[in-house]
Amino acid sequence: MRRFVIGQAKNLIDQSRRQHLHPLKNLRLLSLLPPFSAPPDSSLPVFSSRLLSSSSSEMSASDSSSSLPVTLDSINPKVLKCEYAVRGEIVNIAQKLQEDLKTNKDAYPFDEIIYCNIGNPQSLGQQPITFFREVLALCSHTALLDESATHGLFSSDSIERAWKILDQIPGKATGAYSHSQGIKGLRDAIAAGIEARDGFPADPNDIFMTDGASPGVHMMMQLLISSEKDGILCPIPQYPLYSASIALHGGSLVPYYLDEASGWGLEISELKKQLEDAKSNGITVRALAVINPGNPTGQVLSEENQRDIVNFCKEEGLVLLADEVYQENVYVPDKKFHSFKKIARSMGYGEKDVCLVSFQSISKGYYGECGKRGGYMEITGFTSDVREQIYKVASVNLCSNISGQILASLVMSPPKPGDDSYESYIAEKEGILSSLAKRAKTLEEALNKLEGITCNRAEGAMYLFPCIHLPEKAIAAAEAAKTSPDTFYCKRLLNATGIVVVPGSGFRQVPGTWHFRCTILPQEDKIPAIVNRLTEFHKSFMDEFRN
Amino acid sequence: MRRFVIGQAKNLIDQSRRQHLHPLKNLRLLSLLPPFSAPPDSSLPVFSSRLLSSSSSEMSASDSSSSLPVTLDSINPKVLKCEYAVRGEIVNIAQKLQEDLKTNKDAYPFDEIIYCNIGNPQSLGQQPITFFREVLALCSHTALLDESATHGLFSSDSIERAWKILDQIPGKATGAYSHSQGIKGLRDAIAAGIEARDGFPADPNDIFMTDGASPGVHMMMQLLISSEKDGILCPIPQYPLYSASIALHGGSLVPYYLDEASGWGLEISELKKQLEDAKSNGITVRALAVINPGNPTGQVLSEENQRDIVNFCKEEGLVLLADEVYQENVYVPDKKFHSFKKIARSMGYGEKDVCLVSFQSISKGYYGECGKRGGYMEITGFTSDVREQIYKVASVNLCSNISGQILASLVMSPPKPGDDSYESYIAEKEGILSSLAKRAKTLEEALNKLEGITCNRAEGAMYLFPCIHLPEKAIAAAEAAKTSPDTFYCKRLLNATGIVVVPGSGFRQVPGTWHFRCTILPQEDKIPAIVNRLTEFHKSFMDEFRN
Repeated sequence: MRRFVIGQAKNLIDQSRRQHLHPLKNLRLLSLLPPFSAPPDSSLPVFSSRLLSSSSSEMSASDSSSSLPVTLDSINPKVLKCEYAVRGEIVNIAQKLQEDLKTNKDAYPFDEIIYCNIGNPQSLGQQPITFFREVLALCSHTALLDESATHGLFSSDSIERAWKILDQIPGKATGAYSHSQGIKGLRDAIAAGIEARDGFPADPNDIFMTDGASPGVHMMMQLLISSEKDGILCPIPQYPLYSASIALHGGSLVPYYLDEASGWGLEISELKKQLEDAKSNGITVRALAVINPGNPTGQVLSEENQRDIVNFCKEEGLVLLADEVYQENVYVPDKKFHSFKKIARSMGYGEKDVCLVSFQSISKGYYGECGKRGGYMEITGFTSDVREQIYKVASVNLCSNISGQILASLVMSPPKPGDDSYESYIAEKEGILSSLAKRAKTLEEALNKLEGITCNRAEGAMYLFPCIHLPEKAIAAAEAAKTSPDTFYCKRLLNATGIVVVPGSGFRQVPGTWHFRCTILPQEDKIPAIVNRLTEFHKSFMDEFRN
Repeated sequence: MRRFVIGQAKNLIDQSRRQHLHPLKNLRLLSLLPPFSAPPDSSLPVFSSRLLSSSSSEMSASDSSSSLPVTLDSINPKVLKCEYAVRGEIVNIAQKLQEDLKTNKDAYPFDEIIYCNIGNPQSLGQQPITFFREVLALCSHTALLDESATHGLFSSDSIERAWKILDQIPGKATGAYSHSQGIKGLRDAIAAGIEARDGFPADPNDIFMTDGASPGVHMMMQLLISSEKDGILCPIPQYPLYSASIALHGGSLVPYYLDEASGWGLEISELKKQLEDAKSNGITVRALAVINPGNPTGQVLSEENQRDIVNFCKEEGLVLLADEVYQENVYVPDKKFHSFKKIARSMGYGEKDVCLVSFQSISKGYYGECGKRGGYMEITGFTSDVREQIYKVASVNLCSNISGQILASLVMSPPKPGDDSYESYIAEKEGILSSLAKRAKTLEEALNKLEGITCNRAEGAMYLFPCIHLPEKAIAAAEAAKTSPDTFYCKRLLNATGIVVVPGSGFRQVPGTWHFRCTILPQEDKIPAIVNRLTEFHKSFMDEFRN
């Protein structure tokens, strides 16, 4: 046992050393560690600090299996390095609490866990769009289409649409692997939807359908990153899929900071500065990732800003990775979503001028079909030989799931005026979006009333990302607990209220500032109670730690 | 233009040089190139030779976009190195033929393209299992469960099962992201199915549900491979997912040859020899991949052989990666499928003795639900800290698709005697499996009648992998056409008959031998015509090239 403990400690030290003695470690812009740097222990990644805090039980678990061949120091260090706080430590604690609540209700000052950590609308009661699910059911069990009773159970346009989709699938076989990019007829529908949205042509051959947006992002990172010398410009704060994917593929995240004071503004001067810094450190920056509307920051970019970004990518020879999964989620009348492709085309830039990938997902918008795992990327401005390589990598995984493909085509071609479902579809869609706007506003106002909290408005997406000005005593207490101050705050919030949010350090933030991400997704009738619980907790937290 | 052509040619040369001047290139066991090595051109990977053959048109395509930032020499060389012939060159030609057939029917000596390249049963007319699709439709559009008319349209046990599944999903939300490993209740059903199959306990916490088996294989490769010094023992011939995934993760494929003469026997002495060779070349072998029933080789391992394999992994400290996706596809009375976990447990080895990953998929068996992308891996013998890393990587992708998860639970817990659907379910299942056995036999016998072709029986899986003894003149003709002899044969077969098969070099084979993989999946009524076309083509091919 003792020998094993020593071995285990050595592994942790080695692991930490690997992270700290990285050949490029002195470049702040390259560090994949959270920016918080004092005290030293807290600078370990979320997962490593978790390992430290619970290592004794894990050591004994490992010890009894010590003859097994796979250990932390024999696995791929890129896996160790990768972090994903959206389902990290806080969520693990929440899941354990939820289990314990079942039998131990009296032990807690709350009745349920409210998961505000992740953009997962249907898990919090949002209902799916009826038309989409009708079509999906008919395509799942096509024998229904031959039954007369079906006409009493389904809208007539869902039946028509199911037939149309089946006609587009070779042999009507929804259980067959499709073309590696997705079923051609469904890509036609998506391309038509993009054209209708943008007013510029879209080519179905540019569409690669994916199981949600995440596999598309991974595919592009895999293509663009050969080594740690390859950099990807990412916003800070960012959605941690980007940092996780860059870590898994062994590249370097080149951060550019969004300006919180100007509503999370994206400044070209900051992009230029960070690009130059990266270059002078031997990094070749391959791409710029932009999330619009922003995650976790919720801002919607202006057209002018988007044009500047397109020009920056063109001048610097960068691929523009446009995360546009929240394109339907805009809540303020003074902002509107414009795809980067529309912006580029309206500037006169064609296929040969700008290298652009747009990611879309069925998990967000008003549909929120997260569990169905559908999405696509639209790839323009790549040469045919590079596209062939993307096609090859897509082929290794055969195809994305057909239900997700069908839904992706439906969100890009929903019912039209005159269709049997049109009115109910519009009522469902607008009900969801207007309610989300209301919830965003209520939560934002409540947060801004709290001592030491400032919160930009959520112009779009599904999140608020308030800044917490934590008292010195709270920071010292976090230090003593060997955790980052925002994690300390979020854990206390969870334990006091059952509300699950994600610490800002999981998204990165300007060093010395602290935030958390909270979704706007709990149903409207739950919002007042959430506001009360949050307000009460925050007050008592500040009372405890106020300097 | 001229400058660009020179640049492009340089890229191709550099690319080829990168492949050939690999620091470890002299080790045959490490080479990711097909084993055929003369003439030199044919030793390029399938995709590279394709690039060479069509480079002039692509150069001009690239030329017109020469200001774009992403080029073949700037992308990740691991992507370039990866090959996947199952959807490679021959299939691309077939797709073009199929398009052309629509308008140009008279130009071809056949009416349709028959895709025997891939195990995709429903694309060739196999019908899905009714019960599975009923449950899926009800879970897709849950409002159906409240309608009385539904009882007239669905079997009563499908309705019961849908309710049961919905009760296992938090909030009955089939549109929500699930737990990163998959819905707990569905994993319970899978674990119970594994227990019923094996007679040994299974733990739902060991199940990681995946979008088909492929993402599970990628996840394990990502975990186990840190660099080209990490090796994975793979059968030759192998399913090219393994070589592709190892290439994408930058590891080394350590081949072990199956013995064609003894029905694709897997010899422990061969495993030992290749392991020692790899060690002496500085490779740390991390895992042994075994495909049982075999793909593309169709053999079913004996229990004794499986015990020897388990002992080999235990002694050598290897993870056993057991590809068991064809577990329902056994066609001969003298063979039976046994999972490696059952074998290990029956030898008295528990959680702490053997490190084992079993992959299962909904794409194969009698269900063939390829397009639904479902599957799972059962992971045993990993320490809790390593499992935590696997969980983290699964979390980055949030979860596999819920329709696939539901189907995975259904294939592991189908209707039971007494259930409303039981009899029709058994009739559908047995109809499919007995027809597959018949088709396998017919095709095997037909192939064995052809001059110079020998074909082992398909004891299981979905493929025949005949050996073609090609005449010298055919080999010379392939050389002149700058392609491998088996690719040459398969292209000629496609152009003469419309039948799509995959050259053996896509799976690798003993150097100097030639094969192709042909599925047994065309519907029974098509088999006689396929046999005739194949026989006629082969006769005329041999007449043309016989020495």
